[in-house]
Amino acid sequence: MNIYLAGPDVFLPNATEIGRQKVALCKRHGARGFFPLDNAIDINAGDASRQIFHGNEAMMNHCDIIIANLTPFRGPSADAGTVFELGYMAGHGKLCFGYCNDPALYLDRVRRMTEVTDRDGHLVDADGLTVENFGLADNLMMIHALDLYGAPMIFPREAPQDLWQDLTSFEACLKLAASY
Amino acid sequence: MNIYLAGPDVFLPNATEIGRQKVALCKRHGARGFFPLDNAIDINAGDASRQIFHGNEAMMNHCDIIIANLTPFRGPSADAGTVFELGYMAGHGKLCFGYCNDPALYLDRVRRMTEVTDRDGHLVDADGLTVENFGLADNLMMIHALDLYGAPMIFPREAPQDLWQDLTSFEACLKLAASY
Repeated sequence: MNIYLAGPDVFLPNATEIGRQKVALCKRHGARGFFPLDNAIDINAGDASRQIFHGNEAMMNHCDIIIANLTPFRGPSADAGTVFELGYMAGHGKLCFGYCNDPALYLDRVRRMTEVTDRDGHLVDADGLTVENFGLADNLMMIHALDLYGAPMIFPREAPQDLWQDLTSFEACLKLAASY
Repeated sequence: MNIYLAGPDVFLPNATEIGRQKVALCKRHGARGFFPLDNAIDINAGDASRQIFHGNEAMMNHCDIIIANLTPFRGPSADAGTVFELGYMAGHGKLCFGYCNDPALYLDRVRRMTEVTDRDGHLVDADGLTVENFGLADNLMMIHALDLYGAPMIFPREAPQDLWQDLTSFEACLKLAASY
């Protein structure tokens, strides 16, 4: 069982270490984890970003399962790169799992960053753009893709002290994946 | 030629009208445009968000091409739902086009919302998370998916007066799509 370990974990100061921990947890649950930073990239090459893309794509094609860290990243939604990868794996019909260390609803996440007002019975942000209000934690496409292609998104009951280092919900995904 | 019209346009106050304009432009270029809001959904039903998901997924499966509006949405990156859909279509091997009405680089978009500092030769945000700095407009997965599965992302030379209503770059994508 080959699992693609997607997430903004690659942007952490201790990204390599987090990757090692995730791969070790996979091993403990009888799976093989693939962490994007384990691709061999010449980061100083002119085409480094394209090398990373090709490396990640090859890893995804090699894996049967994705576990995506969908903790909000620079805004109310998950990291765009991770969301792209979740879509890519769903498009390929692979098994999709995801977790989010912030259990807040999308509406409340948006409220943290901007004013949300009621306009004729529907909610809009400061730019007048509709705020999705289905009682979900993030955009419905991600949430229901997980429901349909794997298992509902995993959340902690309360946000852990360290949103980026806590792997409890990651391990819960792993257990679900291993049970398939 | 069936084109899925992805984007946060569905959140605009005049979403239905923008959808109509996009579908009309598609027709002018010999294509059939599919706008998510054209799915029949009972928005008051308990499972409205799931109905929307299934409607959008069926539309995507029916289309050969996606044109994604990747203008930054509530943060420095594109709308999460749109990014998921781009990944889904790429995963299906469909033709992918995208445009963005904000030509700023990702680094500059992040700088608009938080302090970016140099830590030992690489850039980090206020939370200490690495800021991608490849001279790209958004996360590399999206940018290179477009390069590889369709055509490079289309930008205006300068941001149009109205980021959400201007369809010039959308039409440029459409012309590219029609030439395939």
